[in-house]
Amino acid sequence: MKEHARKRIVILGGGFGGIYTAKYLEKALGRRDDYEITLVNKENYFVFQPMLPEVISGTIGILDTVSPIRRLLPKTDLHVRDIESIDLENRTITTSPGFRPHSHVINYDYLVIALGNVTDFRGLRGLPEHAIPFKNLADALYIRNHIIRALEEAAIEHHDAELRRQLLTFVVAGGGFSGVEAVAEINDFVRGVAQNYIGLDPSEIRVILVHSQDRILPEMSEKLALFAQRILQKRGVEIRLNTRLEAATGQEACVAGGERIPTRTLISTVPASPHPIVESLGLPKGKNGRLIANRYLEVEGAKNIWALGDCALIPDPGGEGFAPPTAQHAIRQGRTAAGNIVAAIRGGERRTFDFKGLGTMGALGHRSAVAEIFGMKISGFVAWWMWRSIYLMKLPGWGRRLKVATDWTLDLLLPPELVQLRLAGSMGITQEHFEPGEEVFHQGDLGDRIYIIVTGQADVLREDKGQETVLAHLEAGQYFGEMALLKKTTRTATVRCTAPMDTLSLPKREFSLLTSYLPELRKEFEMVMEERNRDNLSKMAQAGNRPDGVKTMKADE
Amino acid sequence: MKEHARKRIVILGGGFGGIYTAKYLEKALGRRDDYEITLVNKENYFVFQPMLPEVISGTIGILDTVSPIRRLLPKTDLHVRDIESIDLENRTITTSPGFRPHSHVINYDYLVIALGNVTDFRGLRGLPEHAIPFKNLADALYIRNHIIRALEEAAIEHHDAELRRQLLTFVVAGGGFSGVEAVAEINDFVRGVAQNYIGLDPSEIRVILVHSQDRILPEMSEKLALFAQRILQKRGVEIRLNTRLEAATGQEACVAGGERIPTRTLISTVPASPHPIVESLGLPKGKNGRLIANRYLEVEGAKNIWALGDCALIPDPGGEGFAPPTAQHAIRQGRTAAGNIVAAIRGGERRTFDFKGLGTMGALGHRSAVAEIFGMKISGFVAWWMWRSIYLMKLPGWGRRLKVATDWTLDLLLPPELVQLRLAGSMGITQEHFEPGEEVFHQGDLGDRIYIIVTGQADVLREDKGQETVLAHLEAGQYFGEMALLKKTTRTATVRCTAPMDTLSLPKREFSLLTSYLPELRKEFEMVMEERNRDNLSKMAQAGNRPDGVKTMKADE
Repeated sequence: MKEHARKRIVILGGGFGGIYTAKYLEKALGRRDDYEITLVNKENYFVFQPMLPEVISGTIGILDTVSPIRRLLPKTDLHVRDIESIDLENRTITTSPGFRPHSHVINYDYLVIALGNVTDFRGLRGLPEHAIPFKNLADALYIRNHIIRALEEAAIEHHDAELRRQLLTFVVAGGGFSGVEAVAEINDFVRGVAQNYIGLDPSEIRVILVHSQDRILPEMSEKLALFAQRILQKRGVEIRLNTRLEAATGQEACVAGGERIPTRTLISTVPASPHPIVESLGLPKGKNGRLIANRYLEVEGAKNIWALGDCALIPDPGGEGFAPPTAQHAIRQGRTAAGNIVAAIRGGERRTFDFKGLGTMGALGHRSAVAEIFGMKISGFVAWWMWRSIYLMKLPGWGRRLKVATDWTLDLLLPPELVQLRLAGSMGITQEHFEPGEEVFHQGDLGDRIYIIVTGQADVLREDKGQETVLAHLEAGQYFGEMALLKKTTRTATVRCTAPMDTLSLPKREFSLLTSYLPELRKEFEMVMEERNRDNLSKMAQAGNRPDGVKTMKADE
Repeated sequence: MKEHARKRIVILGGGFGGIYTAKYLEKALGRRDDYEITLVNKENYFVFQPMLPEVISGTIGILDTVSPIRRLLPKTDLHVRDIESIDLENRTITTSPGFRPHSHVINYDYLVIALGNVTDFRGLRGLPEHAIPFKNLADALYIRNHIIRALEEAAIEHHDAELRRQLLTFVVAGGGFSGVEAVAEINDFVRGVAQNYIGLDPSEIRVILVHSQDRILPEMSEKLALFAQRILQKRGVEIRLNTRLEAATGQEACVAGGERIPTRTLISTVPASPHPIVESLGLPKGKNGRLIANRYLEVEGAKNIWALGDCALIPDPGGEGFAPPTAQHAIRQGRTAAGNIVAAIRGGERRTFDFKGLGTMGALGHRSAVAEIFGMKISGFVAWWMWRSIYLMKLPGWGRRLKVATDWTLDLLLPPELVQLRLAGSMGITQEHFEPGEEVFHQGDLGDRIYIIVTGQADVLREDKGQETVLAHLEAGQYFGEMALLKKTTRTATVRCTAPMDTLSLPKREFSLLTSYLPELRKEFEMVMEERNRDNLSKMAQAGNRPDGVKTMKADE
């Protein structure tokens, strides 16, 4: 092999599959200098998924469920970038640019695709805009801070009971492991910290789990699932079975059948699809868009490409179906892939993936869990104790183990953490979804942004002496809300959605900056505003709402 | 008092001054129901400033230097909001809106202003856009993540040595306690984790402290300051004395005298001003815009208003000058203010503030510090041990103390944390500053945003066969960069700043959204683009760079 040039193995994705492939490769290839391993991941850390729900409740420290990849893989070259494209013909990976807008290309000789899956809300009305996924560390932190913000706001909201009800209702959609663990942690957390909020009535808190099937935890036996349901219900979680989440707005979760649950916090763990890059690859795909691999984890129709983990369809050793998308499978797939790559580089025999699974476990918060291991069904405290012991041992690196063990110990002594981190800066242009009957804003509100209708319809209404006049109908391509911004007044009319509507909106600050420096834009807004002013005047007159004078007439649509 | 209505004491600000005023008030007013305390703060936590630099290096957990205010002050009603205005006549506070765009007004009978100060970069070229303040938890987290990102990018940047130099140079401006502690932690951190980065040459790392006076730590005696300088220099910090930071760009720190230090990380702890709300108040102000208070902490010219902490000028008990802006003073001022408010409500004698200060301490990282206590000057390990013991005792709440003590213990065993949290979402419209000679973008770069010139000038240049042609001069009000966005190409020209320039820029995603839904805007951009294309064609021809054909002519300015 010495005559050969240095070969590069590129691994895409830093989840269980990618990390363990690299780990076993580092071990197998040893100190020889004929290869290099490059791993591309959009974060510089590996997330230990099973403990992620505990980040929401603050049981463990923010960083303690993640491990820096550079420490786990000292011989691997890490590129912390988003992947923009894979060129199978030229064997290159293009990543997003870094500090400078240059493209960054990585060549490969051997490729491992372990990109996992993403929560995919496409095609569900309002979900892309308003549902919060729960997949990675940023999601967990966002959820945690959002929940605390909702509690803070509810505690000082004494006038608007409807808003308080929305703020104090927390909805999780999806009753698989991920959703159940998340709802359990959220429920423990909000009920645990509520006593710290003067002016918050704990009986107003609702935590709801929405699940489309007739029982939760389809991954487990019915007995354990029913146990889990009882435990959650006893702690105050409302479980809605046979209920499918259909749409979402900023204020509501809409479920099939027409019911709308008022909420400002909707978390959805379903549905999932493979990473968008996998979708765009010209390689054969199977169920749910996953890459078809054989039992050696080789991708069908490609050379020197392996796929594993949640983005791959790998035949189950039993012969029926495919390996389930769990961490224990991804870890063993990593070992198999690493072995087969070494065989491809240095020669040797390939091995098949034939791990059959050890069992499943799910935490229910507050010292309870369910587990199905070696054919045994265990629930309650013992299962919880097993859950903690097993995952603590599986957590990579003794440093993390020490930290998490410390966190868990301190958690027995200390009250739940309720610091709210405000992390996001300006959000720029925002996309929002509205359902019929919802108000975009109300007459008298502060004018904080301008809206452009992408699809859907809305009415502009003015209330005067208890009488409502429709001033205009708005539809796709029209904008509204500029008047309060240009004239610096409060909203002088209400805008109410009449057909499911998607909008773009630009905050006040951005609107002011743009209209100051793009005079053409300002001119256009001003022209439309004047036209509308004239129009509204005549409509109000027709409706019998005689305005006192032209000067006081400011419509805001 | 029973006949009186319930009185409301409103405290603005949750720093040392505000928190300790509320704490002493809760104690002094006891269980009686004739008052309520409201505290308005933009975060729901109190930051224990002395330990903030350790968040940068990860020595202590992200949340362990902050305490939830609701736990510290169980009887105080907390409003987590930004303050928008204070109406002295009607005795109301208006805060920013929450989830809905309604204004939120709080009435007060007694008012405590403890808003502290803010880092104030106004009037310094490019600092508002590019210098990172170091004042609160969000700043510390931002700095930490930014530094890790710079290291990640430097480790994979093998082509562009200039960019790598910028990424590996870390500049802190301001040699007071805050700047010195920050630079010490940053230096320890980057040099500590550098070994984890394959492909990073530790000798390329530079950490620079820029200070305008002839020695650092003006708060301390010269002997200790010199000790601190030696320690920092020994560990690799370059100290630039008598050097004033004058301007900043995205790529450089410009210091007086014309030198430009290439860097992507410029942290500045100076200069500071009182909170903007204090500035807008119609009350007499003294040095640096601070509110003038008497020795009872009563604000001059107002009734039932007290001011304390960094936003107030309070006579020093010694009779000369004013109380220094330190935590120990703010805490005692809180006690004095609380006592005097109780006297105002229930009658009783007012007291004056006459605390003289206990001394000063500054940490230098890596088990060294300087301290001046009870007239003694202490440095090195003993001072560090004192620093840790004293601040651990001062940290409010035994829960936090336990956590920080645990963090410090684990820190002895574990390597420094290097997880990079990506927290910020889309940044929307961005403001940037450029100095003459700097490129905004280079021919061939990816087209990622469009720029509008607010002030200043730039040239558009095209390079062809080694020859540079100036295609256009740009100035305030003009925009550039639209072509690569509209035509989805790379930049076909370079734009270089010729006179100090401020720009607004809109990222590709926002630009596309706006131009799709505001057709007028798109039309304008397209018109200007066509005009420029024609113009460039003739200029290139004049300069002898004959283009092959009109079709290949795409300028990007």
